[in-house]
Amino acid sequence: MGETLVKHITHDEILNMEKQERVHFANSLGGFKSVVLIGTQNNKMQKNLAIIDSILHIGSNPPLFGMVFRPGAVERHTLENILETGFYTINHITEKIHKQAHQTSARYDQGDSEFEKTGLTPEYKDHFFAPYVAESKIQLGIEFKEKVPISVNNTTLIIGEIIQIYIPEDSLNVDGFVDIEKANSITCSGLDSYHKTIQLDRLSYAKPNLEITSIIN
Amino acid sequence: MGETLVKHITHDEILNMEKQERVHFANSLGGFKSVVLIGTQNNKMQKNLAIIDSILHIGSNPPLFGMVFRPGAVERHTLENILETGFYTINHITEKIHKQAHQTSARYDQGDSEFEKTGLTPEYKDHFFAPYVAESKIQLGIEFKEKVPISVNNTTLIIGEIIQIYIPEDSLNVDGFVDIEKANSITCSGLDSYHKTIQLDRLSYAKPNLEITSIIN
Repeated sequence: MGETLVKHITHDEILNMEKQERVHFANSLGGFKSVVLIGTQNNKMQKNLAIIDSILHIGSNPPLFGMVFRPGAVERHTLENILETGFYTINHITEKIHKQAHQTSARYDQGDSEFEKTGLTPEYKDHFFAPYVAESKIQLGIEFKEKVPISVNNTTLIIGEIIQIYIPEDSLNVDGFVDIEKANSITCSGLDSYHKTIQLDRLSYAKPNLEITSIIN
Repeated sequence: MGETLVKHITHDEILNMEKQERVHFANSLGGFKSVVLIGTQNNKMQKNLAIIDSILHIGSNPPLFGMVFRPGAVERHTLENILETGFYTINHITEKIHKQAHQTSARYDQGDSEFEKTGLTPEYKDHFFAPYVAESKIQLGIEFKEKVPISVNNTTLIIGEIIQIYIPEDSLNVDGFVDIEKANSITCSGLDSYHKTIQLDRLSYAKPNLEITSIIN
């Protein structure tokens, strides 16, 4: 096997790309991403469902997650509903529903619900305001906490705290680790590429001068 | 096959977990994450390498990426170097180097370089100030742009712009998509679980009343 040829691309070359090419390119470079469905409704009980690939773990005590919204994006109803009502759900995507999940990114009319249009099922439980996705195996009920403006490109980071959690009982390990691969959660890259995973290993806590070991089995 | 039992966990139950259990738990819930090595050096040319699982795509024009730093974390030298010098590298992790990458999270003494300690090779090119990881197949040279404080838990979002890119030539598709699976990039979940991927599909741009199709082949 020969060496793989390396392509060098400069800042100017990115800026000179055709718009859609640059969007595909830049979205691919950060690595694999979390991909989830965000369930919301407004105070008139109109439901909304949006696929989001910018979930970011912000803290564990309390458990906080962030996500990014661009100005004028397809997901603007999601952002409006979160700011209006203070609640949303994060629902993991499995292989079985990844096409329906992707379809939620279509620009539907204001009055249309992505739940109805894609055939995914809204689920209400434990008096939580926002709808979960019934087909999702890992469901998180979130309360809005902070809106952080990012001035460099006029985007918004929305931070929320986990209030309710539903996970398959057999995915929760004794040390607190949730085996999301066992729960069939998938990952994405770029704008439109979906991937399932194969676990390589779980590795022991790293210390200087100590060899890392597998902590599975 | 029977139904999988669903476990319901409440906010109070999370807060009552033992600290390390809660950290494993909360880190798992957001889905699969990007996992990369951040290369920096200070103005005395002392090199630093840190594994980071909080890379976030912030924008494409210009191409911006964020990452989160907690106060007093192991990665604090990385943050100090970025703020002191203005430059860093993002290097994707492959299966081949995932144990060395994980080992960089050990709390080494101030004067020690994680490059030397883990056997990963610093690489300098095109007069870029910060070191790349030679073993990495996707390498990004980044210029620091904005420090965004997140007040709810005293963390910091660091945003930078891509200045230089090195990728395997055969991973770049004609539409701008970079096939990071083909480039052997891996993903992670929780604090310590590493996964390779199997692409399910790339899906067409979603429109109302139009069936999604595969855009591969």
